[in-house]
Amino acid sequence: MLTIHHLVIGRSVFTVWLLEELGIEYQLEPYHRLETRRAPPELREVHPLGKSPVIVDEGRTIAESGAIATYLLETYDPEHRLSPPPSDRDRWVQFIQWLHYPEGSAFAPLSLVLLSASTPEPMPQLVRDFASGEVTLHLDFIEAALQGHDYILGNEFSAADIGLGYIVALAARLKLLETRAVLTDYLSRLQQRPAFQRAHERSGG
Amino acid sequence: MLTIHHLVIGRSVFTVWLLEELGIEYQLEPYHRLETRRAPPELREVHPLGKSPVIVDEGRTIAESGAIATYLLETYDPEHRLSPPPSDRDRWVQFIQWLHYPEGSAFAPLSLVLLSASTPEPMPQLVRDFASGEVTLHLDFIEAALQGHDYILGNEFSAADIGLGYIVALAARLKLLETRAVLTDYLSRLQQRPAFQRAHERSGG
Repeated sequence: MLTIHHLVIGRSVFTVWLLEELGIEYQLEPYHRLETRRAPPELREVHPLGKSPVIVDEGRTIAESGAIATYLLETYDPEHRLSPPPSDRDRWVQFIQWLHYPEGSAFAPLSLVLLSASTPEPMPQLVRDFASGEVTLHLDFIEAALQGHDYILGNEFSAADIGLGYIVALAARLKLLETRAVLTDYLSRLQQRPAFQRAHERSGG
Repeated sequence: MLTIHHLVIGRSVFTVWLLEELGIEYQLEPYHRLETRRAPPELREVHPLGKSPVIVDEGRTIAESGAIATYLLETYDPEHRLSPPPSDRDRWVQFIQWLHYPEGSAFAPLSLVLLSASTPEPMPQLVRDFASGEVTLHLDFIEAALQGHDYILGNEFSAADIGLGYIVALAARLKLLETRAVLTDYLSRLQQRPAFQRAHERSGG
């Protein structure tokens, strides 16, 4: 059976959510953060980077949220319920961009805001200005892309909403959505999905 | 014909390199950085995020280096010369992880080192310690993964070496490779490829 190594609280609950959307059986190995908020050293025995999520399936250890999503869709969704096939060209081109967007573009400026909030010394003004400008640009971009439909590829949910949901949830946690109804509504639409709720119940967040 | 919007100097020369490895014809639109080192506003007319690389092919505008690589391989490499097919399971699982690794894991700590070098005010000590520990972890990880073979998937070059080459080149630029012969040799092996050299000549870096 597939195993997911899950760090409470963090990115990996979104991979648990994908497993729940796919409806496959899995075993969840939970890890808890140290007092410093860092991941515990046991995770390095699973993968040398000591990160989460990591899955183990059919003897293969796989890291990187985007790669895990690609693997799970290729292996457990041959009917393409959660992602368009390459032959559905326009939607597929959108899908691969949204699959890479969370880590490729949106996470870096948000992580600067997260780091600023977690250090007692202030970040340099230049970095704060850069982060705040980039975060605004990204939240505007996501909001514009969601305008007029419920999910990022249109009116149907896809696996691209899971990675994007992570970014929007992180922005919510950093209290960046207070004037952004489109993003707040999108997040609550995602959170109402039964698979999302099962993932949170089973993983502890 | 495919167009690539390329910002001199930056990430996009690695996408130009992939185009050269694929041997396809393309038109290169160059952009130059402002005095502040930021991208010029004209890039926002190509894509709302104003980033590079962006390609336009058959009327579709595609951003995100990893998504562009996925698109180019799917469209222009049906013989799988530069990436393993999903049926070649072990190599494919390695490939998708290395495809996501540059932006998913390695870039964030390197970008903190880059930011530290470009602000007159110092970064908080906690952030500098975090970045330096993470950078060491990643460079050790890549070095271990390259041990005993020429390219990241083994003795044959693949498109995964392009994204990883970007990370190693960035580390070299930040003078982080001085005691790392495996990574220095890997980078010079990549730089000797005729396609790499054509990309640099044609794009201006």
